[in-house]
Amino acid sequence: MESQFLGWLRSRLPESPWLRLGPGDDAGVLRLGKTAEAVVTSDLLTDQVDFRLGHDDPRRIGRKALAVNLSDLAAMAAEPRAAVISLALPRDGALDLACSLYEGLLPLAAQFGVAIAGGDTNTWDGGLVISVTLIGEPGPGGLLLRSGAKAGDAILVTGSFGGSIHGKQFDFGPRVAEALLLMQRYGIHAGIDCSDGLAHDVWQVAEASGCGAEIELANVPIAPAAKVGSACRAVPSAEPQQRSRPAGETYKNLTPLDHALRDGEDFELILAVEPSEAARLLQDQPLGIPLTRIGQFCAEPGLWQIDGTSRSPLKPIGYEH
Amino acid sequence: MESQFLGWLRSRLPESPWLRLGPGDDAGVLRLGKTAEAVVTSDLLTDQVDFRLGHDDPRRIGRKALAVNLSDLAAMAAEPRAAVISLALPRDGALDLACSLYEGLLPLAAQFGVAIAGGDTNTWDGGLVISVTLIGEPGPGGLLLRSGAKAGDAILVTGSFGGSIHGKQFDFGPRVAEALLLMQRYGIHAGIDCSDGLAHDVWQVAEASGCGAEIELANVPIAPAAKVGSACRAVPSAEPQQRSRPAGETYKNLTPLDHALRDGEDFELILAVEPSEAARLLQDQPLGIPLTRIGQFCAEPGLWQIDGTSRSPLKPIGYEH
Repeated sequence: MESQFLGWLRSRLPESPWLRLGPGDDAGVLRLGKTAEAVVTSDLLTDQVDFRLGHDDPRRIGRKALAVNLSDLAAMAAEPRAAVISLALPRDGALDLACSLYEGLLPLAAQFGVAIAGGDTNTWDGGLVISVTLIGEPGPGGLLLRSGAKAGDAILVTGSFGGSIHGKQFDFGPRVAEALLLMQRYGIHAGIDCSDGLAHDVWQVAEASGCGAEIELANVPIAPAAKVGSACRAVPSAEPQQRSRPAGETYKNLTPLDHALRDGEDFELILAVEPSEAARLLQDQPLGIPLTRIGQFCAEPGLWQIDGTSRSPLKPIGYEH
Repeated sequence: MESQFLGWLRSRLPESPWLRLGPGDDAGVLRLGKTAEAVVTSDLLTDQVDFRLGHDDPRRIGRKALAVNLSDLAAMAAEPRAAVISLALPRDGALDLACSLYEGLLPLAAQFGVAIAGGDTNTWDGGLVISVTLIGEPGPGGLLLRSGAKAGDAILVTGSFGGSIHGKQFDFGPRVAEALLLMQRYGIHAGIDCSDGLAHDVWQVAEASGCGAEIELANVPIAPAAKVGSACRAVPSAEPQQRSRPAGETYKNLTPLDHALRDGEDFELILAVEPSEAARLLQDQPLGIPLTRIGQFCAEPGLWQIDGTSRSPLKPIGYEH
């Protein structure tokens, strides 16, 4: 729904002198004062899609609501400054719930130097909704956009993929410092944070850059959680829409590689890097977490999988909002 | 709930170098770059509280979601720049609903020069929630805060009050230009936009300023809609929590003055003005909409009503979030 809607919306938005970058990337970029720029992102989390109230600790839910926005600023190589947090709370126990959400959120805000600039706290007869808008500034290495990938660029990723539903969806560390370091020291062409599935989000960078992408299946770093055989039984089947679950097929028929390619909410960086810079980066491994080359961008549009010597189309399956 | 929660939250927020003004006023103020400041406000609207989906035109709902934020920036005398809009949409007809909301919102954005910087569009099994964060910059006359009222200052208001549930809650014009003009040309000490009821919001300014306030009942400008006798029958009794309705008593027992003092969502400006400046302002009437003096701030804390020659406490009844 969201991609269809974004197409409709973009055709209706006039040019604005205040906007350097409008909807469509991981964040918008706003001109303020004579020289300042604000990088602005927003994520709205809803019960039964992004978390399950009553099952998940509200402190982990609150943490996640800020962390997903930090991940969006990481994807822009921006430095976080302040958050605005709005809540729609079920009436019963609203005050306790609000406090618990903030108890999870505030330590992460402190860790990343994020001020709480305001928000709106409401009760209603519906379920829990958390909307966080995060404002940052471009980092010293400049902004990282989705649209700069060139054919021949290596696809590098941080960390590993799949199975975030088993805990990483709540506990992941947003790659803010990593993105800032990479943009200051290396020639990075484009990037995104992986929130809707590895295959889907590699394809998003290719689409935004007007090229294609080839993923070498043997090189995809698979998270241990993607290999958890009992995963399908640990997840109640009553929540088919949950964002960190893979789309398109029944959960239990998927291999660990399928999970790595399709599960959402990994919140790792996917980068397009000029080949010689990629070699230097892989040699240096400057992040403390692994950087892995999983393929390359190519001139031919579309998403492709390389399996040994065979090359075939790969569906950009992932979470659709 | 919200005021209780804000007390809890403020005690837990550390100082931040990025924040000139934190939660508690109509907007937060953030330092960006070397000299820029961003004025940031957020309102989250929920079904059956701020609107009734199925009864109210979605275009009016969308317009309102932006307008209430514009009113918050007016209350700060800030110039609007860009909005971030996040939606939680019921799954059925989500795309059509999203488009209708924006069809109502975009003309108002164009009118006030507001760019759409981004947002998040989601579907879920719950009701409609709209979260708008609006970013502006301080106007040339400086920022208008709640906290500057002094004993002796006149209480001036724009427009008239009460009965906004009959239409004004959707169709009001945010007082952005008015606030900017007043701050440039007159000595205004403090201000707020009236969203939770006139009595309640006058009291909010007094509280923030460490003083009291006296409202002269005979001088309160009562909107024609507050006098609509059949009002109570036009509003289904199944929506007791709706924000634009008065709190505390049954609707039909209230006089027009009660409505003017207690109904929410008037979105007029309430201002604290030095007495000689107030006289000049009332003489000039520079806004095109009436400015009326309804009382004064006083040294004795609390909220008071002046009825002829009698002075008695007035309960700051209004919408409690």
